Amino acid sequence: MVVGAGFGGLFATKTLRHVPAKVTLINGTTYHLFEPLLYQVATGILSEGEVAPPIREIFKGRRNLDIQLGWVSDVDVEAHEVVVDGADGRVRRVPYDSLIVAAGAQNSYFGNEAFAEHAPSLKNIDDALEVRSRIFHAFEMAELAEDPDEQRRWLTFAIVGAGPTGVELAGQIAELAQRSLKGQYHHADLTQTRIVLMDAVDRVLPAFDEALSVSALKTLKKLHVDVRLGTRVVDVDAKGVTVAGGERVEAYTKIWAAGVMAPGLAQRLAEATGAPTDRAGRIVVEPDCTVPGHPEIFVVGDMAAQNLPGVAQVAMQGGRYAAQVIKGRLAGKPVTKPFKYFDKGNMATISRFSAVANVGKLHLSGLLGWFGWLGVHLFYLIGFKNKVTTLMHWTVSFLGRGRSERIATTQQINARNALHHLSTDDHHRAVGVVQQLQNGRPE
Amino acid sequence: MVVGAGFGGLFATKTLRHVPAKVTLINGTTYHLFEPLLYQVATGILSEGEVAPPIREIFKGRRNLDIQLGWVSDVDVEAHEVVVDGADGRVRRVPYDSLIVAAGAQNSYFGNEAFAEHAPSLKNIDDALEVRSRIFHAFEMAELAEDPDEQRRWLTFAIVGAGPTGVELAGQIAELAQRSLKGQYHHADLTQTRIVLMDAVDRVLPAFDEALSVSALKTLKKLHVDVRLGTRVVDVDAKGVTVAGGERVEAYTKIWAAGVMAPGLAQRLAEATGAPTDRAGRIVVEPDCTVPGHPEIFVVGDMAAQNLPGVAQVAMQGGRYAAQVIKGRLAGKPVTKPFKYFDKGNMATISRFSAVANVGKLHLSGLLGWFGWLGVHLFYLIGFKNKVTTLMHWTVSFLGRGRSERIATTQQINARNALHHLSTDDHHRAVGVVQQLQNGRPE
Repeated sequence: MVVGAGFGGLFATKTLRHVPAKVTLINGTTYHLFEPLLYQVATGILSEGEVAPPIREIFKGRRNLDIQLGWVSDVDVEAHEVVVDGADGRVRRVPYDSLIVAAGAQNSYFGNEAFAEHAPSLKNIDDALEVRSRIFHAFEMAELAEDPDEQRRWLTFAIVGAGPTGVELAGQIAELAQRSLKGQYHHADLTQTRIVLMDAVDRVLPAFDEALSVSALKTLKKLHVDVRLGTRVVDVDAKGVTVAGGERVEAYTKIWAAGVMAPGLAQRLAEATGAPTDRAGRIVVEPDCTVPGHPEIFVVGDMAAQNLPGVAQVAMQGGRYAAQVIKGRLAGKPVTKPFKYFDKGNMATISRFSAVANVGKLHLSGLLGWFGWLGVHLFYLIGFKNKVTTLMHWTVSFLGRGRSERIATTQQINARNALHHLSTDDHHRAVGVVQQLQNGRPE
Repeated sequence: MVVGAGFGGLFATKTLRHVPAKVTLINGTTYHLFEPLLYQVATGILSEGEVAPPIREIFKGRRNLDIQLGWVSDVDVEAHEVVVDGADGRVRRVPYDSLIVAAGAQNSYFGNEAFAEHAPSLKNIDDALEVRSRIFHAFEMAELAEDPDEQRRWLTFAIVGAGPTGVELAGQIAELAQRSLKGQYHHADLTQTRIVLMDAVDRVLPAFDEALSVSALKTLKKLHVDVRLGTRVVDVDAKGVTVAGGERVEAYTKIWAAGVMAPGLAQRLAEATGAPTDRAGRIVVEPDCTVPGHPEIFVVGDMAAQNLPGVAQVAMQGGRYAAQVIKGRLAGKPVTKPFKYFDKGNMATISRFSAVANVGKLHLSGLLGWFGWLGVHLFYLIGFKNKVTTLMHWTVSFLGRGRSERIATTQQINARNALHHLSTDDHHRAVGVVQQLQNGRPE
């Protein structure tokens, strides 16, 4: 059984294609999410379908595979069963012989969950559409604003977290304001758009080689992004962000790209197995990705504490490795070598024609890095059709300057407005209702 | 000033390109909606961006055009001002010299507004995404269902209204079940999917030539669509539909494609000008599309009662005509001939490779009709990029069998589940909250 259809679960399931056993894949949504391109959904370049291919379409025709829509809430390690909150509201216990848990990571506000209302994160499709709606709505509001302070607040975008998501978002919002939307507004001067990118650490892209951080910072500055390093955010409210020391960034649009933590399932699995967890709640696994004392349970990807970065490649390779171990056991040819991550490198694109990448000792930046980024992402995108329409959308957005996927639903806008215009008394209650509706799933 | 960026408003604004006057376009959303393809968004073929190009992108670089996001709630005909509920929550009065009102039509439940909760309609992007979410969710629920009656209810789709939208939806859901999703479900037998298409009148596509109705009906039957004509729906609830005579259609998924009426603005405009309205609330206009006694106010498209069908062509031609009259007046060369609709024909596509069309006296059906449909829709789609990616999506969905745009947000699913699991007491209150969030706009 595989839990989760992210990169880890997807590659595990793919690898289990020809095993003489039934495979069950349980996931909370009907689609696999290509998370590294989520920021392009948020900035109007790609449609949500392009980064979220349906799992059933990826695995169509697989006779040994059963796909179930639901959330695994617990694991009964004695009975060898997982407890599934089915999407139909029923709770089921589903048996397993081997279990690969790849439930990924979820966003973390470091204990300040109240920030979420004002600064959505960018971890799933709902987030991406919410952020998209806020970004494009902000330009419309700036166009309508009569008060200069009000207009300035609408034209200021505060991004918390300077990892790949924060950096890529900052770059794309800058492109939007300076290039893509040029000439489309008459009252708001989009050249006055301010993008403030904040992080508590002292360099951008801290997981990358230092030379690339320097090069990325240079590109961001060329795009007039206001990068504030060593800056800790202490409060987020409707009108802006307060940083340690009391300084304010006045901005209606805030995006949280700062931290992740293990999902609730990690905690439950740790309790059930006695496995240790790290500070982020991830499970410390054996060299073969199994849970200590439970050779039948594997944890791969962002849920595993392995001193590896939280990137797609780690999850893909972990998922594939775990599936190979299971295949080996079924075939009577046990895999004995431990999991070893092969680092193919890191990359982030900052604006069109400019990306940074390190591949082994090789550093790429600028145009060369960008073509590398393009090729790798197209290669890993799932499905021929998605590759073609994505390439088309990139052509339009990067060679041209169109942003064709910038639709917000009225539901999103109304939900925000409803919060905005309520009295403080009603506000709290309504926030609860709306967040319950918006949340991926109450933990 | 132009009110509305549907087909009428869009073509009026386009025609006013080179006038020596300022043009203001006021619309409630940031996009033009290509309504005839909305059913393809609902059935997973197209992304919402492909049928909803941003107005600002269509008109970029137009110096004499001011685009304002807001809803026109009233017209002060004495002061020559429209009252706009701005998207920023402020109410503004905006002056005009000439006014083209093209606010379209809205869905009508013929007084049974309570049906809306169970049977969404298909008039805007929110609707299309809601219907998409319900259709694909239904197949997932059928896969999870253990009770055969329950499964049957999930595999039954009831469509009320056999005009183009109802017919095209029925055809596409049939294709989904019989072809596109084949082999993707293991517990639910999708060949058992039932599509019930109901209408109170006695033929499908009543606005088309009778021979085409016959041909469309034949195609629907070939797709095993259960077409029930002369069937009036008297009640819609969570579990199904009741028709006159008491017969039940048990179906969890219901879609309302039955009727339209004029928006609230038509009523207000009629009160302000004393103009007569027809039974659907549309304004009876003069032969030159102006409101009686107000040569400066034009009403075009679905809002005007002109004995013409409610199709895109009528609105396009009406918008263009009104703009030409205004141009003529500004140039001192008044247009004297009345508006005359040139009927280019009607078309509806029922399934891949099969459409019906009448062009003048020419009747097309089957493959030839389908290629005609394809060409015409591509021609009228706005923007080069949308034409290309749409063609790509059609290739994938019609030559292949992929449905790549079938994402539902968790917010949608949770909102429905929240309603589903509430007690009757709480239910009413929650429906109010959710509908307020979901509604395009409270009238």
